[in-house]
Amino acid sequence: MSTTAPTSALTMQDAILALQRYWTERGCLVVQPFNTEVGAGTGNPATALRVLGPEPWRVGYVEPSVRPDDARYGENPNRLQTHTQFQVILKPDPGNPQELYLDSLRTIGIDLDAHDVRFVEDNWASPALGAWGLGWEVWLDGMEITQFTYFQQAGGQVLRPVSVEITYGLERILMALQGVQHVMDIRYASGPDGQPISYGEVFGQSEYEMSRYYLDDADIGTNQQLFSAYAAEAQRMLDLELPVPAYTYVLKASHAFNVLDARGAISTTERAVSFKTMRNLTRDAAELWRARREAQGHPLGLVEPLPAAPQPAPEALPTIDAPATALFEIGLEELPWSDVVGVGEAARANLEAKLAATRLPHGAVRVDGTPRRLVLTVAEVGPAEPDATEFKRGPKRAAAFDADGNPTKAAQGFSRGQGVDPSALETVEVDGTAYVGITKAVPGRSAAQVLSAAFAEVVAELRSDKNMRWADPNLSFSRPIRWLLALLGDRPLPVAVSALASGTTTRVLRTAAEPEITVDRADGYLDLLREHGVVADRDARRALVVEQATALAAEAGTPGARVDVEAQAELVEEITDLVEAPRALLGSFEDRYMSLPAAVLTTVMRKHQRYLAVTDGEGRLLPRFVTVANGDCDVDLVRAGNEAVLRARYEDAAFFFGADQQTSPEEFHGRLDTLAFETRLGSMADRARRIDALAQVIADRIGLEGDDRATVSRTGALAKFDLTTQMVVELSSLAGVMAGEYARRAGEPEAVAVALTEMELPRSGGGALPATVPGAVLSLADRLDLLTGMMAIGNVPTGSSDPFGVRRAAIGVVNVLRGTPALSGLSLTDGVAAAAERLAAQGLELPGTLVTDAVALAQRRFELQLLDAGHDHRLVQAALVKADRPAEAEADLAELERRIDEEQVQTLVATVQRVSRILPGAGADEVAPAALSGAEELALARAVSELEQNLGTEPATVAAFVDAAKGLPPVVDAFFDAVLVMDPDPAVRAARLTLLARLATLSGRVLDWSAL
Amino acid sequence: MSTTAPTSALTMQDAILALQRYWTERGCLVVQPFNTEVGAGTGNPATALRVLGPEPWRVGYVEPSVRPDDARYGENPNRLQTHTQFQVILKPDPGNPQELYLDSLRTIGIDLDAHDVRFVEDNWASPALGAWGLGWEVWLDGMEITQFTYFQQAGGQVLRPVSVEITYGLERILMALQGVQHVMDIRYASGPDGQPISYGEVFGQSEYEMSRYYLDDADIGTNQQLFSAYAAEAQRMLDLELPVPAYTYVLKASHAFNVLDARGAISTTERAVSFKTMRNLTRDAAELWRARREAQGHPLGLVEPLPAAPQPAPEALPTIDAPATALFEIGLEELPWSDVVGVGEAARANLEAKLAATRLPHGAVRVDGTPRRLVLTVAEVGPAEPDATEFKRGPKRAAAFDADGNPTKAAQGFSRGQGVDPSALETVEVDGTAYVGITKAVPGRSAAQVLSAAFAEVVAELRSDKNMRWADPNLSFSRPIRWLLALLGDRPLPVAVSALASGTTTRVLRTAAEPEITVDRADGYLDLLREHGVVADRDARRALVVEQATALAAEAGTPGARVDVEAQAELVEEITDLVEAPRALLGSFEDRYMSLPAAVLTTVMRKHQRYLAVTDGEGRLLPRFVTVANGDCDVDLVRAGNEAVLRARYEDAAFFFGADQQTSPEEFHGRLDTLAFETRLGSMADRARRIDALAQVIADRIGLEGDDRATVSRTGALAKFDLTTQMVVELSSLAGVMAGEYARRAGEPEAVAVALTEMELPRSGGGALPATVPGAVLSLADRLDLLTGMMAIGNVPTGSSDPFGVRRAAIGVVNVLRGTPALSGLSLTDGVAAAAERLAAQGLELPGTLVTDAVALAQRRFELQLLDAGHDHRLVQAALVKADRPAEAEADLAELERRIDEEQVQTLVATVQRVSRILPGAGADEVAPAALSGAEELALARAVSELEQNLGTEPATVAAFVDAAKGLPPVVDAFFDAVLVMDPDPAVRAARLTLLARLATLSGRVLDWSAL
Repeated sequence: MSTTAPTSALTMQDAILALQRYWTERGCLVVQPFNTEVGAGTGNPATALRVLGPEPWRVGYVEPSVRPDDARYGENPNRLQTHTQFQVILKPDPGNPQELYLDSLRTIGIDLDAHDVRFVEDNWASPALGAWGLGWEVWLDGMEITQFTYFQQAGGQVLRPVSVEITYGLERILMALQGVQHVMDIRYASGPDGQPISYGEVFGQSEYEMSRYYLDDADIGTNQQLFSAYAAEAQRMLDLELPVPAYTYVLKASHAFNVLDARGAISTTERAVSFKTMRNLTRDAAELWRARREAQGHPLGLVEPLPAAPQPAPEALPTIDAPATALFEIGLEELPWSDVVGVGEAARANLEAKLAATRLPHGAVRVDGTPRRLVLTVAEVGPAEPDATEFKRGPKRAAAFDADGNPTKAAQGFSRGQGVDPSALETVEVDGTAYVGITKAVPGRSAAQVLSAAFAEVVAELRSDKNMRWADPNLSFSRPIRWLLALLGDRPLPVAVSALASGTTTRVLRTAAEPEITVDRADGYLDLLREHGVVADRDARRALVVEQATALAAEAGTPGARVDVEAQAELVEEITDLVEAPRALLGSFEDRYMSLPAAVLTTVMRKHQRYLAVTDGEGRLLPRFVTVANGDCDVDLVRAGNEAVLRARYEDAAFFFGADQQTSPEEFHGRLDTLAFETRLGSMADRARRIDALAQVIADRIGLEGDDRATVSRTGALAKFDLTTQMVVELSSLAGVMAGEYARRAGEPEAVAVALTEMELPRSGGGALPATVPGAVLSLADRLDLLTGMMAIGNVPTGSSDPFGVRRAAIGVVNVLRGTPALSGLSLTDGVAAAAERLAAQGLELPGTLVTDAVALAQRRFELQLLDAGHDHRLVQAALVKADRPAEAEADLAELERRIDEEQVQTLVATVQRVSRILPGAGADEVAPAALSGAEELALARAVSELEQNLGTEPATVAAFVDAAKGLPPVVDAFFDAVLVMDPDPAVRAARLTLLARLATLSGRVLDWSAL
Repeated sequence: MSTTAPTSALTMQDAILALQRYWTERGCLVVQPFNTEVGAGTGNPATALRVLGPEPWRVGYVEPSVRPDDARYGENPNRLQTHTQFQVILKPDPGNPQELYLDSLRTIGIDLDAHDVRFVEDNWASPALGAWGLGWEVWLDGMEITQFTYFQQAGGQVLRPVSVEITYGLERILMALQGVQHVMDIRYASGPDGQPISYGEVFGQSEYEMSRYYLDDADIGTNQQLFSAYAAEAQRMLDLELPVPAYTYVLKASHAFNVLDARGAISTTERAVSFKTMRNLTRDAAELWRARREAQGHPLGLVEPLPAAPQPAPEALPTIDAPATALFEIGLEELPWSDVVGVGEAARANLEAKLAATRLPHGAVRVDGTPRRLVLTVAEVGPAEPDATEFKRGPKRAAAFDADGNPTKAAQGFSRGQGVDPSALETVEVDGTAYVGITKAVPGRSAAQVLSAAFAEVVAELRSDKNMRWADPNLSFSRPIRWLLALLGDRPLPVAVSALASGTTTRVLRTAAEPEITVDRADGYLDLLREHGVVADRDARRALVVEQATALAAEAGTPGARVDVEAQAELVEEITDLVEAPRALLGSFEDRYMSLPAAVLTTVMRKHQRYLAVTDGEGRLLPRFVTVANGDCDVDLVRAGNEAVLRARYEDAAFFFGADQQTSPEEFHGRLDTLAFETRLGSMADRARRIDALAQVIADRIGLEGDDRATVSRTGALAKFDLTTQMVVELSSLAGVMAGEYARRAGEPEAVAVALTEMELPRSGGGALPATVPGAVLSLADRLDLLTGMMAIGNVPTGSSDPFGVRRAAIGVVNVLRGTPALSGLSLTDGVAAAAERLAAQGLELPGTLVTDAVALAQRRFELQLLDAGHDHRLVQAALVKADRPAEAEADLAELERRIDEEQVQTLVATVQRVSRILPGAGADEVAPAALSGAEELALARAVSELEQNLGTEPATVAAFVDAAKGLPPVVDAFFDAVLVMDPDPAVRAARLTLLARLATLSGRVLDWSAL
């Protein structure tokens, strides 16, 4: 398990010195940690205040970062209440911060060729501080060793210029560097007589004792008092216009808050109020600081904006004689995995549209992409656009020449503007009016001209869901664009956009012997990349991942061992876009962790590490995993690193699992009021109480009795309790799963444990549904409360935005109703109305249309789901007349689908439609209907009455209706043949229309026949 | 004024890196500053906790040290609310910490040959933390750049092993290194593009704002609340046995206290209570930590004790044939200046006594000394002790032999013990009893044997007032002893004591080309030292100081300019013992500081800098000073450095002077209750009130009227107000002087200003006295209150200890009474009784003998002062019969001294003594005296009555008595010739004795005749 630990590796102390030296040599100030507790290096005023405003700033410093929540008594291999950051701020972005950073790793002895170093999307935001940025976690063999962020906003202020923040997690780096398995074993220093002094010796006692303080012993009242005192003092300093002491007290307040949080002593209200307090104080301090620097005339000067790249000179543009391939590569700092496909496709479409708006002949436009590049190729680009002509319209003919036929001033002006003599003006007629003008030749632009401009625009128009600024003054995209490569055939194609100019060089793997290569020609570029290890073709890359993982699983030593790529399809997609050169490795973990719930094990692997799980022939988890590195590396080293990370994660999980079992479900449930849900909807405890109450209402409504009734009662009483467990706080996707696990272990009945887990189902639109009735009841209550509650306060999902998961809740409601026969007695409207009652009982004022709106939303999701599943939209529309009872609608839809082509059904459809068609135009006379008299009339009246009797007042199923209405068509046909419905006598007419309306109503309850 | 600033000097950032590297290479851990405010690097647990217990520890770190009191809004050239310490702990003392330290200075670019670097006594104690140590300030050209301490105690615990603490003041070092005049101008870093970033840029804003906070804006209530909260949390953590969080909260409490103190918000009671709280908490945390380490088995191991040096083998001891000089040098780390003479003389006396107890022939024993060495020489040491015999006494003769004359067991045992046959026993008689015994030959020891042992003992017995431990396990002295040099003639003389062994090498100036030299022979050693620059002969060294200073003053450019060495005699002595190689320099300061009171200027020079003031022909201060460096240096550089230090000091003084004038004397007076005086005697405000009241009583008693009476009233109302001014808080010796200055500027009458200054006189036993009556009244009241108050609560001075200055107060009372004719109506007893009344009025319970005890103490001091002044002890004793009125006693003494040899006086003395002699033995019969009858009897009775009438009932002066008693002797003689005093008739006897007693009483009021 252990690897070749380089005993000559730097001590932690030497590594710190080396980093200080390295960044000093790169023009950074080195300052000291702040002398009050901060949660991260970012908190130090050398970052928090200095990133504000337009002055340049470069700084590096160590920051012991205090995270009370992370206290583990010094037992966890790499989680600490105080860990040591090394923080670097580069303002402005120097253009190559990733390279500078990687060089710094080399400086402290990390062999980048041997290790797997990756930039994995991780965006940073601190709403409490009004700050956010985009960037990455840097992974070293799967371990997060650095947070790398382009700060976009701080103290509520947009940052121009942007600062690059690099935050090294020194303990983790040193563990990897020294090959030790536990943070306490890090060699901190060489010691006075060559007797190394360990990290544990230097920090262990403090780690234990401060953990005790933060987790167990800190006095809550005292820390509440401290928070208030600090915040008040900060406000006083703001009033006195002293940002530095003000900000210092914000930091102290923040620490007091963190202590309270670690002690579990922050209630919902306190959290919201405290965050607002800290955010406002930080904002005001930041604003004061910025203003102070401005008043001082920006003593450090102003950041010079990057100069724009010169636009390509026409003579520099290449020409081609024959159709050729155009290649355009946009070189990037690592994109988020989820951007690779979407952004690439958008760029391709954008380029295609741009080309379509030109006359340039070209073949297919293709995009390939990896996290570091988008490669656009245009096949068969013709040498140039064909020439064309264009008529330039001038003044009206009537206004162009005077009575003498001489050109007026208007005509002269137009001619002069067009550079022709007025005698050259032609006349054209537009919409009946004669205009003068000239026909101009529009020479076709060369391919290079067209492409250079189009490529530039594509770059400028690149966008993602979250876009950032970096050094470039004009561009904004998901991540910085660092190079452009453009070729037309074998000719360099100059492209200039903002500060970027294209070249013929690309960058392959950073660890390649030759990390930059020159590209001669557009054709075969993907092959060239592949020769250098980069698999830009996404399908090929995905296939490689699957193939390698599958092969490795077979080596796992257990018969039938496999990586279930279908079950982990989403993860496979993610992995595919996390690397340029997939290199899968098989790792393992210790058997002892197998005692943790499998869901915990796989969740940790998937969520934190993007590891593929390995299962045996029976689908049972094996203590193995597959991780995919980027490019060649020292397999043993990287495996050992990844295993160490997983060990620490599992150690953490085991810590939580053990700790959580010290507390009863009831106690956890009692802490739900410390979790915020939504300001107006109250805390999570409020929500749990509503769910409980609603579940009982539903159980009563469906007549649940016996064990199931008891299970609903008990489960409702414990609903959501696991949200306060440490495991779920850490891994929120385990909500429900852990509730079941912990309830079972706490001696709750199995049915309650199951229901607690099932109440969190379905987890997605098409996800698995509760299998038990109590589980379904709770699930339904949960989702009804969310749907109704959110809509009650106006959180209606719009566009692609649904931050509160309201749509997911709506479809959950539908699917649980569909999937649970026992709930068939309940309609959407019943459910929503019951949920609304609970909200009203809580004192919430509800909009009048709440129930109909919420039901409509659910029905719409239901419809979309049916359509997405491939059902015929006509049949869906027809069946959805019963959407309020999705199970019935679904059954009808199925029946319809089975029988729609039957002649009997078709006839019935035609019949009902015929009846329905006449009704809308018929008007409504206010007269008493006369008695029916004709035989056909009477026959139809008999048939309708019979049908009414047979079917009752409830909407009939399609099957029942079709069966019951078997004899109806001929009767209807005879009626229409013999009877003029629109009789001149209003009373007669009314009688006939009334009869038909009865039939329409009857049938309309079954289906929307008009859709068929 | 400015000097060659080395522009290539390290930036502050580089200097920090260089120090971290330097100490890393010497086995130190480098850790981070503590993440809560600490007042000094010592507060960091890496020092405060790690110096405890027996484990080795070496650490170095930067510590931004927060001193709210030192806040100056960033304006002072080198005083800051947060300054940057670099702190090193070496545990155990490595044996050469000074050398390691000096090397580190070289590492950061300090040219030790050019600068004047000195170790100036400065002992460190923090009663609040139960910690103290002995050591030095290190001066760089007069600037304190480092505190260098051998920690003796911390957290109330004696430290074994001792730790060496080295605390660099980085700002000051960098200012000197970079040759900048203001801390804000330090080049902190090179900057991103070679544009240096200044200290001011990095810290200036914070310095200003935090100064605002600490001095003006910190909320007092909040910080009081914080102090309590922190202290309570610390106590809770102690109860939970968690020393680390406990100690962290002690630091927080300490910072809150410092904030309150800087805001002037600490009352006497709070200060006492807070200190006690912090001391107890620190002690308990320290004890817990120590116990925890012990329980963990001392993970870092135990410090190995230094091995004892082997005792010299007999064969290694040299022999001499003829008398030779013996030389013994004890090499030291810099002694406190006040130790050099006293400790040297004690060593000499000790050696002399030891030699006297031997039979070794030798000449004079001489001692010479500098701060770094004590040189003992013994002239004319003979080759060896002469041989001798010794009688060893055994049992009594009677018990030594039985009846048969055979030796008893007792005799046998004795003989066996002495290694002789019983037959060899001799008999001697002692005090009339016969004993047996034997005569043994005692061979004389060689000179080397005698001296080796004696020298070793002298070392082991070296003691000072304050002694310390260092690495040596057995020695304890003022400062560490680092080398021994011993020679007998030209032969090395081995001496071993504890871990030290002598050699033949000495160390001269550290900056010498050859800092260690080998010494060949004892003779001429002082000359050898002098050749190497060291002037070990103290008189010669003093003469050099005076001569150089005098010569430099002549260069000051002002006619008549001089250094008044008499007025600055004490300082000259001090300077003489601060250097080994005096090198005086003339410096100057800017004229603008001349607007500060001269007392401020000279006090700063003398107290802080040991600079000699330069005055013009009229005795007026010139803007010049003389400082004395140790050895050769770059004169311009060292001058510039010293001038910069003085500038900063004067800047500070100007700051105080300006700030203090913003506040009225009344306001300052109102703050006296924030100053502690003595727990039982109350605050300084209580004391000022007592002084005021007492002064009014005295003024009434002596019938003071008019302006003087008004002056006493007003002065009393303001008494002591300047103790709360910043100037006096900083320079306590200016108390009184500043009161006068500030009062005058505040518009008080000149007489009040003078009285406020004079009330602090005399400052020492023989110091100047108040010249005005109001000044004297206040001075007397002040001293009477101190004397009486301290004795009332049992703070009676004992031995050499008088921490409260009770003796000084007592002699002050005496001298003011002696020196102020207007006070002649007041006796010591009157004064003390009045003071006691004030104390009683305050509710203090007074001992019954308070008044007599206090008066006796004062009289005893008066007597000692008279004797010290060279008065004949007989005359003093005679005159002190009027000690309760010192002026009268002094006048009598003077008269006596003038006239004691006159025949008339001698005759009178004989006469009075004759009268007195007969009285004591006379008994006291209880009978009515008969009438006198004889002529001689009646003549004497007449003479006595006449005398009684002439002299009245008050004690007569000697002059008056001698004059009045001119005719007495013959009358007395005639009486004794004719009359038998002890007549058998008791009534007659009684009559005669009564007559004589009247005469004795009359004369006894004048003098103690028996002493003459």
